[in-house]
Amino acid sequence: MKTASLAKEQLMQQAQNSMNLTQDLELSDNQKLALTCRILFDKGHDAGLAGQITCRADTPQTFITQRFGLGFDEITAENLLTVDQDLKPLDGQCMANPANRFHTWIYNEHPDVNCIIHTHPTHVAALSMLRVPLTIAQMDTCALFQDCAFLNEWPGVPVGNEEGMIISKALGSKRAVLLAHHGQLVVGKTIEEACNLAILIERAARLQLLAMSAGQIQPLPMELAAEAHDWVSTPKRNQVNFSYYARQALKNHPNCI
Amino acid sequence: MKTASLAKEQLMQQAQNSMNLTQDLELSDNQKLALTCRILFDKGHDAGLAGQITCRADTPQTFITQRFGLGFDEITAENLLTVDQDLKPLDGQCMANPANRFHTWIYNEHPDVNCIIHTHPTHVAALSMLRVPLTIAQMDTCALFQDCAFLNEWPGVPVGNEEGMIISKALGSKRAVLLAHHGQLVVGKTIEEACNLAILIERAARLQLLAMSAGQIQPLPMELAAEAHDWVSTPKRNQVNFSYYARQALKNHPNCI
Amino acid sequence: MKTASLAKEQLMQQAQNSMNLTQDLELSDNQKLALTCRILFDKGHDAGLAGQITCRADTPQTFITQRFGLGFDEITAENLLTVDQDLKPLDGQCMANPANRFHTWIYNEHPDVNCIIHTHPTHVAALSMLRVPLTIAQMDTCALFQDCAFLNEWPGVPVGNEEGMIISKALGSKRAVLLAHHGQLVVGKTIEEACNLAILIERAARLQLLAMSAGQIQPLPMELAAEAHDWVSTPKRNQVNFSYYARQALKNHPNCI
Amino acid sequence: MKTASLAKEQLMQQAQNSMNLTQDLELSDNQKLALTCRILFDKGHDAGLAGQITCRADTPQTFITQRFGLGFDEITAENLLTVDQDLKPLDGQCMANPANRFHTWIYNEHPDVNCIIHTHPTHVAALSMLRVPLTIAQMDTCALFQDCAFLNEWPGVPVGNEEGMIISKALGSKRAVLLAHHGQLVVGKTIEEACNLAILIERAARLQLLAMSAGQIQPLPMELAAEAHDWVSTPKRNQVNFSYYARQALKNHPNCI
Repeated sequence: MKTASLAKEQLMQQAQNSMNLTQDLELSDNQKLALTCRILFDKGHDAGLAGQITCRADTPQTFITQRFGLGFDEITAENLLTVDQDLKPLDGQCMANPANRFHTWIYNEHPDVNCIIHTHPTHVAALSMLRVPLTIAQMDTCALFQDCAFLNEWPGVPVGNEEGMIISKALGSKRAVLLAHHGQLVVGKTIEEACNLAILIERAARLQLLAMSAGQIQPLPMELAAEAHDWVSTPKRNQVNFSYYARQALKNHPNCI
Repeated sequence: MKTASLAKEQLMQQAQNSMNLTQDLELSDNQKLALTCRILFDKGHDAGLAGQITCRADTPQTFITQRFGLGFDEITAENLLTVDQDLKPLDGQCMANPANRFHTWIYNEHPDVNCIIHTHPTHVAALSMLRVPLTIAQMDTCALFQDCAFLNEWPGVPVGNEEGMIISKALGSKRAVLLAHHGQLVVGKTIEEACNLAILIERAARLQLLAMSAGQIQPLPMELAAEAHDWVSTPKRNQVNFSYYARQALKNHPNCI
Repeated sequence: MKTASLAKEQLMQQAQNSMNLTQDLELSDNQKLALTCRILFDKGHDAGLAGQITCRADTPQTFITQRFGLGFDEITAENLLTVDQDLKPLDGQCMANPANRFHTWIYNEHPDVNCIIHTHPTHVAALSMLRVPLTIAQMDTCALFQDCAFLNEWPGVPVGNEEGMIISKALGSKRAVLLAHHGQLVVGKTIEEACNLAILIERAARLQLLAMSAGQIQPLPMELAAEAHDWVSTPKRNQVNFSYYARQALKNHPNCI
Repeated sequence: MKTASLAKEQLMQQAQNSMNLTQDLELSDNQKLALTCRILFDKGHDAGLAGQITCRADTPQTFITQRFGLGFDEITAENLLTVDQDLKPLDGQCMANPANRFHTWIYNEHPDVNCIIHTHPTHVAALSMLRVPLTIAQMDTCALFQDCAFLNEWPGVPVGNEEGMIISKALGSKRAVLLAHHGQLVVGKTIEEACNLAILIERAARLQLLAMSAGQIQPLPMELAAEAHDWVSTPKRNQVNFSYYARQALKNHPNCI
């Protein structure tokens, strides 16, 4: 076992580097967003028409988002809208979901954020009824370790501007926020990052509910959890994961892009 | 952010108005009822042959309902029956489920009700064993906030007339009733409204069981929950949601209408 | 409401009679047994190769059962075996599951029983780990009210004859028995009856686990539950239900008969 | 009942012998490994790209494993890699998952082990958050009775060599180990054995969570559980089970081999 003497840090670097060998799909933002809708639908983010996904478009203060009235399983690269900060479509047709007004607030106050995913998947929704924070106690979900805020008051249907301010403030500098009595919101520098975090937060909520139902969740060692957080949060890792989920979505929904 | 000064009420009105842009499918009542059967089947309302759906037909004291012996996944616009208030098919063929006799009572005492959906989906059925009311503590299910009655005594198999009187009285002026040891019943002014409520009550029961298993459900602020109730209970909202579910059902069951 | 004066007994009789209007599929026992395997597979009775189904064949002391090594989703009317009471195939080919030796004991001591279904579906299996009896507290599962015995000691892998005696004795005159640390066994005068009971016992176990996880199950009023038991346990009701499930199975597994 | 006098031991031997009548598929190791990936994917072992499967290749100190970046549902007999003990592909192309470095340690210290499956399926992952051992209390899962170790400290992302030593030591002479805050690892003399154990450990974890949520798990009688362990752990039994699962996987994924 000749590598036994290699330090762990070296091994971790080596592994991260060699990931560059994997190939990525070349996708436009519209295609990535449509795929994200299908990926999340297949992974349980399907509470009727609730849930909004947005990303910044090329022109400042414009965003790509879904048409109101379509479910995640109906979104294609073509039927996505480009809207201004008041959610008005640039081409004047159709409308966006009025409930994603609060995304604008987050973009304004978080210049690094390029994609926001807000959904009410089943296990996040159930957990939100208990008004307790997300508990990360399993390796796979460490991307959210100390990286998920908690809004423990529900400000009502998020159609006004106050809700935007409240949610944006609650998010702070983290990448996710669990919204009491409501759902979840994750943000990413990239669509890939946000998509992965959205998958993870619902998985984390499911694991938490299963574990809490059966016993007492034990805490993770802080340092190792922080290390795991960083290990799985690299841009390359997000890309590799997203590519996999995108290939799955394309099998199930071949006409979405 | 030029809209920041708009009052929330204005924004909510604006949003409701612009929903009129979405297109609806043109469907007959038979088609809507058949689609509702398929929608509910796909969403877990499949306890064998239990469960009845009815709506008022054009002639007073007549109703559209399923043939006895067919499951929700077998209902088409063509095989639905039109029956009189004694459940006798107008054309004298086949029979309706004898257990939906109690629907007649509800129609008689609730002139505004045009559609009734009574089912025993898994999570409603499990919750009904605890003999506790439905607890609404998550935004999506607020259409049932203070709008779901509770019949905490089980009057037995609802094949007689007493059960009709009991259930009709328990419902009162609400749109839903949880039936202890039994299941659920929702009513609507339209098929669309009833279909949405049926989906929601099973989702609410599932969320409640998940949350109760893991901890203590926290109550919603009353005023905000009431506001959310009204926000999601407009006819237009019911139409938009139903159209989405109908499109999903048509993908899965293309021959049902 | 001109029928309001009809007594409940009359209404119940009327309903049972009119069920005779529904048509049944004409099926051989081999076909019914193959369909039962597929029905149960689709309803979660799939613990690998565990689980045996048998029915009496035309010749006394012979039985129809599955070939060892095939899953429920692989059984067809053609690949079922006819075996003697020692599980030896009459045509000398293939072999039956050695673990269904105990069926013979039940047939010998229960001359009315013509079909036995023994499986380890997920929720029955989980419930069996708690070593508590099945609790019936919801209308749909009343066919098992006071009709499900409980074997609270596990005699080990049921490959010997002692296990046959123990299980047969535990069953007594009931139609079902929950086997601690093991699974379930139901019996029927007909394949249809046994199939319905097998579906119901897994559903009852699932409801019980869901309800127990969330709170305290409340008991059913004895008299009404007994009435419901009889209401859903008629041969005609079993036939109508089985026909429905058989049509579903044929859609999913068109080549099984 | 002429066999009533046969001793149980004789009956068990008889049964084991007659299993030789069942036919097996002829499969290469690459085909078996690809099928195992698909079997496990279908049975819930799908935590994104987490999870590694390896088996010894023909040349000493070489192993067959998946390409990094592919999910279990994408593995085919053709796209599996043969790697050396440093995870370098013999043909120099692509890369293996850097996180399965610890497999090498297990192979080195467990010469009898020819296949290792390490995954994070949902119920194992949730159970791992409670930091409690696996509890076997149902017959079907007895292959893991006193045969599943427990690593109650999480050493962090298993990319270094220390984790390999820790996990290998925790496994000891058992065939499985539950890894706190992480997942599971099973080993087998054959791919078939490891595949069956991987299916079983996730099933056992699911049963345990369901049972713990609802009540108090009751212990199995030791001697009978040990007997059941041996009864289901024969090479022939593993072969018969694997063949069944492989046929299922081929139906769902016809192009994987």
